[in-house]
Amino acid sequence: MHMRISDLGEFGLIERIRKTASRSTRRAPIGIGDDAAALLLSPSATLLATTDMLIEGVHFDLKTTDLFSLGWKSAAVNLSDIAAMGGEPRFCLTALGIPPSLTVEDITEFYRGVTTCLKKFGAVLVGGDTCASPKEFVISVTMLGESERKRMITRSGAKPGDLIYVTGTLGDSAAGLELLAAGAKSRNPGVGKLIEKHLRPVPRIAEGRKLNISGIVSSMIDVSDGLSSDLGHICEQSGVGAEVFADRMPLSKELRSVNSLARPALEFALSGGEDYELLFTSPVEREREIMSLRVRATVIGAITRKKSMHLVTEKGAVHPLAPGGYEHFRRGQQRGSAR
Amino acid sequence: MHMRISDLGEFGLIERIRKTASRSTRRAPIGIGDDAAALLLSPSATLLATTDMLIEGVHFDLKTTDLFSLGWKSAAVNLSDIAAMGGEPRFCLTALGIPPSLTVEDITEFYRGVTTCLKKFGAVLVGGDTCASPKEFVISVTMLGESERKRMITRSGAKPGDLIYVTGTLGDSAAGLELLAAGAKSRNPGVGKLIEKHLRPVPRIAEGRKLNISGIVSSMIDVSDGLSSDLGHICEQSGVGAEVFADRMPLSKELRSVNSLARPALEFALSGGEDYELLFTSPVEREREIMSLRVRATVIGAITRKKSMHLVTEKGAVHPLAPGGYEHFRRGQQRGSAR
Repeated sequence: MHMRISDLGEFGLIERIRKTASRSTRRAPIGIGDDAAALLLSPSATLLATTDMLIEGVHFDLKTTDLFSLGWKSAAVNLSDIAAMGGEPRFCLTALGIPPSLTVEDITEFYRGVTTCLKKFGAVLVGGDTCASPKEFVISVTMLGESERKRMITRSGAKPGDLIYVTGTLGDSAAGLELLAAGAKSRNPGVGKLIEKHLRPVPRIAEGRKLNISGIVSSMIDVSDGLSSDLGHICEQSGVGAEVFADRMPLSKELRSVNSLARPALEFALSGGEDYELLFTSPVEREREIMSLRVRATVIGAITRKKSMHLVTEKGAVHPLAPGGYEHFRRGQQRGSAR
Repeated sequence: MHMRISDLGEFGLIERIRKTASRSTRRAPIGIGDDAAALLLSPSATLLATTDMLIEGVHFDLKTTDLFSLGWKSAAVNLSDIAAMGGEPRFCLTALGIPPSLTVEDITEFYRGVTTCLKKFGAVLVGGDTCASPKEFVISVTMLGESERKRMITRSGAKPGDLIYVTGTLGDSAAGLELLAAGAKSRNPGVGKLIEKHLRPVPRIAEGRKLNISGIVSSMIDVSDGLSSDLGHICEQSGVGAEVFADRMPLSKELRSVNSLARPALEFALSGGEDYELLFTSPVEREREIMSLRVRATVIGAITRKKSMHLVTEKGAVHPLAPGGYEHFRRGQQRGSAR
């Protein structure tokens, strides 16, 4: 009993999607169904806008993700960019290129994932576009949020001496992807948790807000490409370097205990990517204040004047730390995950 | 001397794109290069947001469009949605899925088309995403604009007795597409003009603003799917019907004179699509005021209480008018053009 999208047509499909989203709200007096959505921001707010595209075969594999999780993740990776600016998410637009292989139920399930994630973080679906795609499922999400004027945390404010923090744990998502690709079933609860972190990441919205409002964070980014890459972005845009301590890396007990992984836990943490945790810097004298914010952050290193990145091992050896995360278009780049 | 994107990498490509766009402006204090763009609207404005996806092989064919025109059109179709709400365009985000066949020069040329079009209509590129696509070139554009609060023209305000207007001429773009597909060269200036209208449509931003500010327009939509389809959207959302007069249809002299077309000019005008003209309604007693706005609009019919659409021929015969424009996912739908 799978309904083909051609049985419903484009406008029938839009009508279905409209039902899963709200047609209009106080903040979105005109939602899905007109030429453009009409949206209200708080007076004097700064608008935040970000967009991310996910393509089947490049960012995800329909053999290893269900449609609900894919919808959730498509929203979550964009919400994470709003979190990294310290903003409040408000509105979401989704453009989908839908291949003939997907059914109406698939698309409905995808949108259930999107709207469930949005709702959990205070945002609403207000518009989009649907079209036919010859082969791959293509997802493009735009997230709009807001922040107080002059209160946004960019990537460019890190200063020498600042401590480097990261929320949550690192490496779980990349380990989950490896387990998924190897066909691991999630009977083992540890494996299940790593896979869940890969399929349904949690954007750190509340943490980003607290850090922004505190006024003591000098730079922030979300960990999407991998810690070494994303810290590289902060260093480059701030004109500084960094020293990271291997033994400070926050590793989950699941990542430490699952022994079917091909690489050491530290490697997943340093270059795995897709953790969607917040990586931020703050002056060293503010450490107690940061800890009092209860954002589950760990100090993993310090910003240096010297413009290079290093990893200090448990035994005190110093190694250069190269950005090792994911970058599109690199030769020999392996595929298979979203960022 | 074509540079492959893999020689440059994702971050190198983003740096190139950033150079074609402005890094920050008064209205966009944080543009390309951070987690999200930070944008300022006029105090008390309503934010307008719209998104459109274009996929190679579905919406365009790289054999019949150059990259500059494709960039222009990707921006223009989204600008047209802002025009249809009576808004001022402000900010643009582009997400691209780039196949291995495209070079750095291709993408640079694409962005030159995007930014040339944006600049002409007062908007700036503030962010986006680039990723690898296995086969098709995928383009997703989000346009943000603004309008005075409580001043937006939706699709749902048409009233029985209102006159139906359309700006410019209809059918040129669809005729241009047919000529392109048939391999017509643009030596004939008439053919060239029709093809240009297809490849580089002009969004009716100034016209939309004038119509909005006038306060006498009851509903508006842009002609993207085709007149009969788009008028159908107004009728459905307003709960009314329409009568359209065949001999009032604004046809360009190029469309009337090119005789290598397979279908009559009227047919292109009624169901061709992609004209990106503004279709709107206004009370009959306001006709002189509408004409004084100088938006190059033609009266093509009237809104009726009866909820169906009819075409009145030159000789006075009345035929049912079915929505005949483009709809994605319809069985047997021919491909090859953007909307």
